[in-house]
Amino acid sequence: MTEDKLLYTGKAKNVYQAENDDEVLIVYKDQATALNGKKKEHLPGKGTLDCQISALVFDYLIKNGIKTHLVKNISDHEQLVKKTTVFPLEVVLRNITSGSLVRKFQIEEGQHLAEPIIEFYYKSDALDDPFINESQIHALGVADKTELEYIKQMTVKVNDLLVPFFAQSDFDLVDFKLEFGKINNEIILVDEFSPDNCRIWDKTSHHSMDKDVFRKHEADLVETYRQVLQRLTTR
Amino acid sequence: MTEDKLLYTGKAKNVYQAENDDEVLIVYKDQATALNGKKKEHLPGKGTLDCQISALVFDYLIKNGIKTHLVKNISDHEQLVKKTTVFPLEVVLRNITSGSLVRKFQIEEGQHLAEPIIEFYYKSDALDDPFINESQIHALGVADKTELEYIKQMTVKVNDLLVPFFAQSDFDLVDFKLEFGKINNEIILVDEFSPDNCRIWDKTSHHSMDKDVFRKHEADLVETYRQVLQRLTTR
Ligand SMILES: Nc1ncnc2c1ncn2[C@@H]1O[C@H](COP(=O)(O)OP(=O)(O)O)[C@@H](O)[C@H]1O
Ligand SMILES: Nc1ncnc2c1ncn2[C@@H]1O[C@H](COP(=O)(O)OP(=O)(O)O)[C@@H](O)[C@H]1O
Ligand SMILES: [Mg+2]
Ligand SMILES: [Mg+2]
Repeated sequence: MTEDKLLYTGKAKNVYQAENDDEVLIVYKDQATALNGKKKEHLPGKGTLDCQISALVFDYLIKNGIKTHLVKNISDHEQLVKKTTVFPLEVVLRNITSGSLVRKFQIEEGQHLAEPIIEFYYKSDALDDPFINESQIHALGVADKTELEYIKQMTVKVNDLLVPFFAQSDFDLVDFKLEFGKINNEIILVDEFSPDNCRIWDKTSHHSMDKDVFRKHEADLVETYRQVLQRLTTR
Repeated sequence: MTEDKLLYTGKAKNVYQAENDDEVLIVYKDQATALNGKKKEHLPGKGTLDCQISALVFDYLIKNGIKTHLVKNISDHEQLVKKTTVFPLEVVLRNITSGSLVRKFQIEEGQHLAEPIIEFYYKSDALDDPFINESQIHALGVADKTELEYIKQMTVKVNDLLVPFFAQSDFDLVDFKLEFGKINNEIILVDEFSPDNCRIWDKTSHHSMDKDVFRKHEADLVETYRQVLQRLTTR
């Protein structure tokens, strides 16, 4: 498949044109980055785990009525997906205080929020993914009001489905990042859902089981992701 | 009056308890700061100009139905105002791209926006006034949804009044910062409206007639503010 045309090489995945014009192939890399790419490491086995965890989550969301880009897994680290025009937005939803929110407002980590917080970041490596508000998103023409309302609604729906999904495997879903794309005038969930793009904490020990183990040198990333996949499949 | 109890000493003003419990006295200082207080200068005459320009703007807003804290000017640099519980928010409205928006998103300066941008900053010198979104404002308990909608509506109304007000003196109102406070369960406009807290450009030369002349060492601040006051009064 890798003889196909490379469309984009990202920090975690490569994107190739698929045979069908309206599909692309996503190939997960054995690479972890942090600090917007400034920290980078080759980690054999990581791509396969991200791909499988993401497929598991997307399958569950699809079964529950969420429209996503996923067509099918081609191998253990390759996915065929609908080719979309991706909104240059990282949509973050938080159930529990952590990460940049805690640092920015000097609040206590681990507080359960009465209502989730939604944040948008403008996807631009050159600009360092700046925090953006809805008013700016409209003014800069990134998404219009109807599109943004729909994206927020879908994000809340995804959260309502994934909180119990992860709870079943004894995880607290602390926060996560989604991306959305447009195809034939329809907005669908794209990209991936893996421990690279969310925070999940063991409900008992409160230990991180996500990329924070890499960011904070707390545990082996590949071994952690392997445990996540196992806990999500055996239940 | 300065024998009264000093309640707060800010970067541009001191706030004293007034005789009436529900009023405070605002005393404008001859001081300019930039970079969140890191740059500071003593500028004789500045306080008087800020106080008079702000009184002029507030009077105009009051005549046009905006509820504000202003009771009356006591001297050329002292105002008696209603004592409120101030929302720790800087409410910014932009009609034309400039300043931090241009730097953050690397867009062109001086673009007239089809619809104004509204931004909120969490007023905290210790945290460096971080950019905050509505979802975070609700979650952190800074303002509830009804309060924030009201604040946004009032900000748009103020803009609709001030754009023609400044245009009459041949200024483009580029952007401005407002603060709001609560008294007896009512939200009113507080603080000041001066060239310290807005950008106004001469419509013909496009030269800044506001604190940017100080930030960018472009012209004498006090002389610039004097010209602003004169253009706002003689017309
Ligand atoms: N269905 C899709 N259609 C088009 N592009 C997609 C789709 N799903 C994900 N992408 C994009 O492919 C890239 C995936 O590679 P990744 O390594 O995550 O990139 P990045 O380093 O930019 O985050 C991202 O830019 C993502 O927005
Ligand atoms: N009506 C009011 N009631 C109570 N506080 C007010 C009122 N109007 C303004 N303030 C507050 O008074 C202070 C004014 O001083 P200033 O020098 O502008 O302070 P800062 O350096 O914090 O901006 C601000 O903290 C402002 O929020
Ligand atoms: Mg990515
Ligand atoms: Mg102030």
